[in-house]
This record gives sequence, structure tokens and C-alpha cells, in this order.
Amino acid sequence: MKLLLLCLGLILVCAQQEENSDVAIRNFDISKISGEWYSIFLASDVKEKIEENGSMRVFVDVIRALDNSSLYAEYQTKVNGECTEFPMVFDKTEEDGVYSLNYDGYNVFRISEFENDEHIILYLVNFDKDRPFQLFEFYAREPDVSPEIKEEFVKIVQKRGIVKENIIDLTKIDRCFQLRGNGVAQA
Amino acid sequence: MKLLLLCLGLILVCAQQEENSDVAIRNFDISKISGEWYSIFLASDVKEKIEENGSMRVFVDVIRALDNSSLYAEYQTKVNGECTEFPMVFDKTEEDGVYSLNYDGYNVFRISEFENDEHIILYLVNFDKDRPFQLFEFYAREPDVSPEIKEEFVKIVQKRGIVKENIIDLTKIDRCFQLRGNGVAQA
Repeated sequence: MKLLLLCLGLILVCAQQEENSDVAIRNFDISKISGEWYSIFLASDVKEKIEENGSMRVFVDVIRALDNSSLYAEYQTKVNGECTEFPMVFDKTEEDGVYSLNYDGYNVFRISEFENDEHIILYLVNFDKDRPFQLFEFYAREPDVSPEIKEEFVKIVQKRGIVKENIIDLTKIDRCFQLRGNGVAQA
Repeated sequence: MKLLLLCLGLILVCAQQEENSDVAIRNFDISKISGEWYSIFLASDVKEKIEENGSMRVFVDVIRALDNSSLYAEYQTKVNGECTEFPMVFDKTEEDGVYSLNYDGYNVFRISEFENDEHIILYLVNFDKDRPFQLFEFYAREPDVSPEIKEEFVKIVQKRGIVKENIIDLTKIDRCFQLRGNGVAQA
């Protein structure tokens, strides 16, 4: 009987352990960030931010590390159905892997590695006074990723309180690929 | 008939408006921050952070604005049933009303006024890699506030996705008042 209880206890501990730490998420080695990336998923607790013409419905093209430890990035987006592109600069904060950004208000986000260094998750919080919101962005080195990895990402984001209908698989929509690589402005 | 539709439309717009912007929350004039405050509510999407011995189960005593625009604060908390106190320094960010803090990881929070300048809400996000979390703190100039204001706060926090059981009314527990005003360390 004692053995049974012991096993039960272990299972609970493992389940709790597994439930707590998303093994898939680790610190990302920022020296590996430079180069092309593709936006795979967007998820937010305020859906309108990632719906059509939403300020956060943007598609990453390229990221480069700057000498002052900031990051330079180029994005594409659609404005009233038309593809356009724009640059962004992410300022370093005193915490490794955490950056700030003025875009539709003041944002702070962490870059984490997901499964391996070919996949990154940006967990962003917009500190708008009236309606702060959370945003999860999933970038990969390829235009698409396996169904298993997609499922893992959806699971993690749901565990963070985001409902399924607020999670958008961008591989199923037009991400303005025709503008990729144009290079909006040399950093 | 047209008039009816018009009225209906207006009602929807007002409902949407009301639903969107929490009229009660405004920018706080930080020059009014100095002095004594009381913790009234704590709420978080990770409940263990605000339960007994949780890192965020802290009770504000006094806040002072420093010359470099940072803020100095003194808190009480209970560690295994014993009251203790400790100081904190909140560093300014480039965004007015938003501060950063290293405490149980890296945190960024916004201070907003709630109803009037006798009540403030801190919306804090902890950027822990594995389990980031959101925290809402409600401070007042008095040890307690009216039931109506409490209800308004609970409504706003629930709208931000926090479930009722993760919202703790601190006026019903021991907040270590006996240590208030001891002055942990002169800034």
C-alpha cells in the first residue's frame, strides 16, 4: 500500500512539475538573433490588436543586433489590404533578453527560445493606461513549422490564459512575402 | 422605426465605449505620491504569488519620490507568520508613470489613479522566462475604502482576465500594521 502511495505522490509531483515549467521555453542566445525570421503565430488577450488592421498584426522579416545591444528589425504589415513595411528598434533593458519598444504605446517584451534556437517566442506587454494587453509572437527561421510544434505553442499560450479564438496561425494568411528582403532602411 | 435603430446603435456604441475604457483609471500625478499608503487589494493570474508566503503578498507603508525620479518605498510582509519589513526602489523608465523593479525577477509596472488621487492601481508584469505573471495592487490613503470602490476595482480586474478567487481583499487579513512607520532605512 505504501508503495502505491509513494508512486501516486511521484506522479503528482511530476504532473505539477510538468504543468509548471514549460520545458520548451529557454533563454535565447541573442548573438544568434541576426538574420531572417518568419512570423508563425500571433496571440493576444485583446483580439482586435491582432485582427486585420490591428496594430500588432505584423510579420517579421529580418532582425539584426546593433552595437549598443539594441535590436533593429524590419516588418511587413497590411494596411487596408495593401502590403507595406517598416523598421523597428528594440531598446535593451537592464534585464538580459528583455527589451522595450515605443509602438502603439510603451511595450516591454522578453525573447525566449522555443524547442530550439530556430524558434523564438516574444512575450510582450503593452502598458497602455486604459487597456494594457499581452501579446505572444512566435517566429521561426522557416516560413512554416511542424504541426507538433504548433500544437505545443498553442498549449503554452492557452496555459497563459489566452483563449483559442485569440490565437492566429499566420501561415494560413498572406504575410506580404513579396516585400521580404527589400531592406526598408540600412541600420 | 429609423429612430429606434438610431437609439439602438447609440446604446451599442455607449456600451462598447463603456466596456472599453475603464473611466475610473487615469494617469496619476506622481508629484502627489509621497507619503503613507495602505494595501487594499492584491490580484494575480498566478495565485501562489499572492497567497501566504507568496513573493508578492506585500503591504505598502510609505512611498517617496527621489530626486532622480525613482521612487523609494517601504513594505511589510509576513514570512512564516512573522511580520517583517523591507525597502524597495522603483527605477524610472522612458515612459511616464511606468517603472521597473528587480524583485523576484524583472518587473515593469504602471501606476494609475483610480477614481481619485487617494487611490492608485499598480499594474505589474513579472517577465520571468518560465512563468511570467500579472499582478494588480490597489493602494489607498486610508486603511479601508467603500464597498462601491472595492466592487469597481474587482470589476476592472476581472475584465482584465483575473478570476474572482485570485483577487484578495487585504482589509480582511493582518497587514502588520504594528510595524508601520518604523522607517526601515532613511532614503
